[in-house]
Amino acid sequence: MAMLVVKVGGGRGIDYDAVCADLAELHRLARPWLLVHGGSHETNVLSEALGHPPRFVTSASGYESRYTDRATLEIFEMAYCGKVNKGIVERLQRLDVPAIGLAGLDGRLLSGRRKSTVTIVEGGKKKVLRDDHTGKITTVNTELIRVLYDAGYALVVCPPAISDDHVAVNVDGDRAAARIAEAVKADDLVILSNVPGLLRDPDDDKTLIPHIAPDTLNAHFDYAQGRMKKKLMAAREALDGGVGRVVLGDARIAQPIQAALGGRGTVIGHPTDHRA
Amino acid sequence: MAMLVVKVGGGRGIDYDAVCADLAELHRLARPWLLVHGGSHETNVLSEALGHPPRFVTSASGYESRYTDRATLEIFEMAYCGKVNKGIVERLQRLDVPAIGLAGLDGRLLSGRRKSTVTIVEGGKKKVLRDDHTGKITTVNTELIRVLYDAGYALVVCPPAISDDHVAVNVDGDRAAARIAEAVKADDLVILSNVPGLLRDPDDDKTLIPHIAPDTLNAHFDYAQGRMKKKLMAAREALDGGVGRVVLGDARIAQPIQAALGGRGTVIGHPTDHRA
Repeated sequence: MAMLVVKVGGGRGIDYDAVCADLAELHRLARPWLLVHGGSHETNVLSEALGHPPRFVTSASGYESRYTDRATLEIFEMAYCGKVNKGIVERLQRLDVPAIGLAGLDGRLLSGRRKSTVTIVEGGKKKVLRDDHTGKITTVNTELIRVLYDAGYALVVCPPAISDDHVAVNVDGDRAAARIAEAVKADDLVILSNVPGLLRDPDDDKTLIPHIAPDTLNAHFDYAQGRMKKKLMAAREALDGGVGRVVLGDARIAQPIQAALGGRGTVIGHPTDHRA
Repeated sequence: MAMLVVKVGGGRGIDYDAVCADLAELHRLARPWLLVHGGSHETNVLSEALGHPPRFVTSASGYESRYTDRATLEIFEMAYCGKVNKGIVERLQRLDVPAIGLAGLDGRLLSGRRKSTVTIVEGGKKKVLRDDHTGKITTVNTELIRVLYDAGYALVVCPPAISDDHVAVNVDGDRAAARIAEAVKADDLVILSNVPGLLRDPDDDKTLIPHIAPDTLNAHFDYAQGRMKKKLMAAREALDGGVGRVVLGDARIAQPIQAALGGRGTVIGHPTDHRA
């Protein structure tokens, strides 16, 4: 059976216990999966506590991202690879899942180009920021995934990735999950966050868009704000890469993954690709 | 060729660049190794910054350790698994070593018993502390080491381990390295820290003890203070477990590992076991 790739966000209010319980159940059902997780809320809390507050910038093309200087990268690693990753691995072990936590830089699991400068828009003006440690994944080490999967392990993956010139780089978690889903030929990609899916009105859960046909996806970018834009971009990249369907699901409910596989949330894909 | 296990401490003044350069050279020479690292200094700095200062306690049997409540465990994971582990992996990648960083809890690499209470001596009085997240390794997952080693990767390992009842536990890094060395049937265990080796007088580097025969090791515990006691205990456990020799070397010099393998530091083992 093809692999399921699950991305769970790192925003405030994410219930990792429910996500892990659901993953453990899928493991018992012999459905193979790979989890990609975020850690933005923990990174923000840690950044504030260490006196190096987070700085979010909006690129010229309208995407929001975390400006990642070297100090921020190290804080990011502490939150993502330390607290969040090991916390998830511990929860899964407790549920009898043989989990292994890896950052994208481990074994060059996720590698690509570094973008050391970012052009941002601030107060209506364009501005170039240097010393950024961000990047874009071009290569997924599927051989490493295969080796560990064949040995019976379940992978829990997070940024940073490693650049082609060997620097740890912050990469977008949703797009990382999309690249992994493409590389392992996943049939489903489930992207969970602390919203119910794509909403026509972000303040009204009742305006959830339950289904998007791939050829109408681009027209839906107008509804997406902030982080949701990157989720749609990730969905588009995954579908373009051959993934059967992408579901934007709610991480805050019970059995969030199985609910998403059952169609709860925003399902992006062809109706014939619904293979839950 | 049998594996070399290297432990590098996490004290102030450790030169990870020199350690990684040396490991990279050994990798080029096709000498397989596994690195275990500490992170005590970074953990102390982070603990202070987060307003949860470290607490070191002395057990009734005279060994010093970090009291690890849940908050400390999470800080510990951020420093060890986040900043230090990923920093070392990044350095090694830059030197073309296909490094993978793992905590002991990943894939149950290192597992054993949790000790949730610790009897300490404070102000001359015995006292029991509860809610401790520390443990003792009883099992090393050599199969996981073998799978990754066979696939061409080099492992960078740190605590915490996972307890038999699935809780992340702080374990002593030197003793973890000894257990790994025993489990993988290493011929050499090199333990590097920010001292030249075992000194008769800890304030005088010229009193270095260059060689200790295994059957006289116990008599040398009198010279060991603080952290050095655990290094001698780790050495004893490794030798009892079949490791050929243990070298206590200086992490602050150039080529610290090759220097230790060449006999610089305190060599503990039979003269016939010197196979550098």
